[in-house]
Amino acid sequence: MKKVLVLGAGQLARMMDLAGAPLGMDVKAFDVRTNNVVLPIDPEHIYGDLNQGIAECDVITAEFEHVAHNTLATCEASGKLLPSSEAIKIGGDRRLEKSLLDSCNIANAKYVVIQNKADFDSAITSLQLPIIFKSALEGYDGKGQWRLKDVEQADTIWQEMSVFINNASSSIPQGIIAEQMVPFDREVSIIGARNSKGEMAAYPLTENHHTNGILSVSVVTSVDKKLQQQAFEVFSKLAEKLNYTGVLAIEFFQVGEQLLVNEIAPRVHNSGHWTQQGADTCQFENHLRAICGLPLGSTQLIRPTAMVNIIGEDDIPEEIFTIPTVALHWYDKEKRTGRKMGHINLCGQTELELAERLVRISSLLNKESFPDLSEFAENLLAKASQ
Amino acid sequence: MKKVLVLGAGQLARMMDLAGAPLGMDVKAFDVRTNNVVLPIDPEHIYGDLNQGIAECDVITAEFEHVAHNTLATCEASGKLLPSSEAIKIGGDRRLEKSLLDSCNIANAKYVVIQNKADFDSAITSLQLPIIFKSALEGYDGKGQWRLKDVEQADTIWQEMSVFINNASSSIPQGIIAEQMVPFDREVSIIGARNSKGEMAAYPLTENHHTNGILSVSVVTSVDKKLQQQAFEVFSKLAEKLNYTGVLAIEFFQVGEQLLVNEIAPRVHNSGHWTQQGADTCQFENHLRAICGLPLGSTQLIRPTAMVNIIGEDDIPEEIFTIPTVALHWYDKEKRTGRKMGHINLCGQTELELAERLVRISSLLNKESFPDLSEFAENLLAKASQ
Repeated sequence: MKKVLVLGAGQLARMMDLAGAPLGMDVKAFDVRTNNVVLPIDPEHIYGDLNQGIAECDVITAEFEHVAHNTLATCEASGKLLPSSEAIKIGGDRRLEKSLLDSCNIANAKYVVIQNKADFDSAITSLQLPIIFKSALEGYDGKGQWRLKDVEQADTIWQEMSVFINNASSSIPQGIIAEQMVPFDREVSIIGARNSKGEMAAYPLTENHHTNGILSVSVVTSVDKKLQQQAFEVFSKLAEKLNYTGVLAIEFFQVGEQLLVNEIAPRVHNSGHWTQQGADTCQFENHLRAICGLPLGSTQLIRPTAMVNIIGEDDIPEEIFTIPTVALHWYDKEKRTGRKMGHINLCGQTELELAERLVRISSLLNKESFPDLSEFAENLLAKASQ
Repeated sequence: MKKVLVLGAGQLARMMDLAGAPLGMDVKAFDVRTNNVVLPIDPEHIYGDLNQGIAECDVITAEFEHVAHNTLATCEASGKLLPSSEAIKIGGDRRLEKSLLDSCNIANAKYVVIQNKADFDSAITSLQLPIIFKSALEGYDGKGQWRLKDVEQADTIWQEMSVFINNASSSIPQGIIAEQMVPFDREVSIIGARNSKGEMAAYPLTENHHTNGILSVSVVTSVDKKLQQQAFEVFSKLAEKLNYTGVLAIEFFQVGEQLLVNEIAPRVHNSGHWTQQGADTCQFENHLRAICGLPLGSTQLIRPTAMVNIIGEDDIPEEIFTIPTVALHWYDKEKRTGRKMGHINLCGQTELELAERLVRISSLLNKESFPDLSEFAENLLAKASQ
């Protein structure tokens, strides 16, 4: 039995545990807030501290990229950490991410690194408006971000941003990436896996829809071979450059037929949750297979599938269980505004059937927690009905 | 969050736990050997005794039918037991099972109940040889069974059988059911669910293959509407007669176009494990939905699927992971001859693809632990290639 320690004890560790148990794997999680090693699906059970966790496991991995660097160093010293601390750090620092993309000649949005006022001013002159400013070290789900649409906003934004840079609690100097906003057609992501033998496999490109900066719906209905190949090339370049082991997620802006990398996540990813019901092997199992030295599982789409995030809500009407293929995944977390509490996976034999079921779901869910799901579902239905 | 207590802490409770966690259900198991309430996927965690378990849960169910009657009575007195103790007891006593079938006018093999030598002699005269004798209270997976093919064996068999009847450790008097052996074409089973509102749903009939009296392979490739209807009628008659709540499994002998009931199991069933990968909703989730008062999930077949039991073996070559759709399910049990240790689910877009994959799997698994899997796979391939 392989023993896996996950850095982070959130929903991704939990779903790794649920995927690993049938494989005979023993998955524990290191909760960075309490410094305890716990059972991911029932964190009341404590197994000791990080050193014990490291000593007792066969392999260490991470469910998030903002792990303290000394923790990563301790784990890496054991020789058990996969992917490498280098890869995890790149996911946690947009400056490293951007240099990696440039060094691999991978298309991404034009940017400037900002450490001070001079950088800020030069960003405004060298990039076209609108510009999006993203903190280098934090900032996913819309946190630590500013949008500059008009030069008149510059002073206000710089004031906030300089406070943010100077107040960074991290031991690593904070910084900002100024990025020219891309007038993209849609956002897509590829979830791929590479195992310790260098074998690679990737899931079909997922189309992602964000609401207030947070992923709200992902959908996969078919495979666009050309785009898939373009995305897979980016995935394989990065995975090989990093000698990566595990699941790696890459978010893109699609502009016409071109994909520009937006973000890299060195881990299983929210936009890959649909694979639990929609793919031959789910991303959690493939991550575990990869880091445990097993052959990767097929990443083939079974049938059109969508995932709806449940954000800041812990009460879903029972009636959704009447819709065929609805698979509800709760994370067992306390309700908090903006918090990812769970997700719903949904399939259809055809894109039309999936769209019809999504329309039914959206009619049952409340508008406050799922503000634009109906619109998304109706659009999918219109597209599928053509 | 619904709290469920399962009587029995084996693989069925474990798989209920894994299916219940994403639904936000808290599944615990009562281990009848240690009298402890434990976490099914990690039974080292003890939560107290039966009374505490009953007090702290919302609903009680069972993973096996041979629960001590006083335990069932204690659970039923709490008002939380589903299905009823009556239904569970019927599954645990072939005499009750046979009377139920007769009272519902459901076709089953001709039989005689044996308590003494006179019953035994009359069975031999009133039933045609060969006769199979099955202990009323135990005896699944081939235990507590005798086959009489020739009258000359009668004395030897009766000697063994009378010792068996008199040595019964149970508080309920042991007995034997003598059944005329049915020259069946194949063995099939239906797994159905009925929820507390009386809604019912059943999975497509599963074809089952036994090796040395133990289920070795189950396969579902398509739906035969007529047979399905016949099986569903039996299921619904029994489920309604028992005012049943939960998943109920019924095993049949198929003789020509007729189904004769062989056995009833008031629980999730080994021949329904394929539903984890092959159906819209798996049997474990549907059992939990049923007993928790939720709408049932779709029981539709996604694509042709097979399940291969892993018996008495804890080492499977890693190479099977290279076969697409292989889903391995270990039960985390200590290796013992004849013990169900896990199972492999396998799918194909077509029956042919499934059969080809099954042939590949059978070539990788050792013949000692999977003695007739190759033959089964080759037969399926021949049938699918027609």
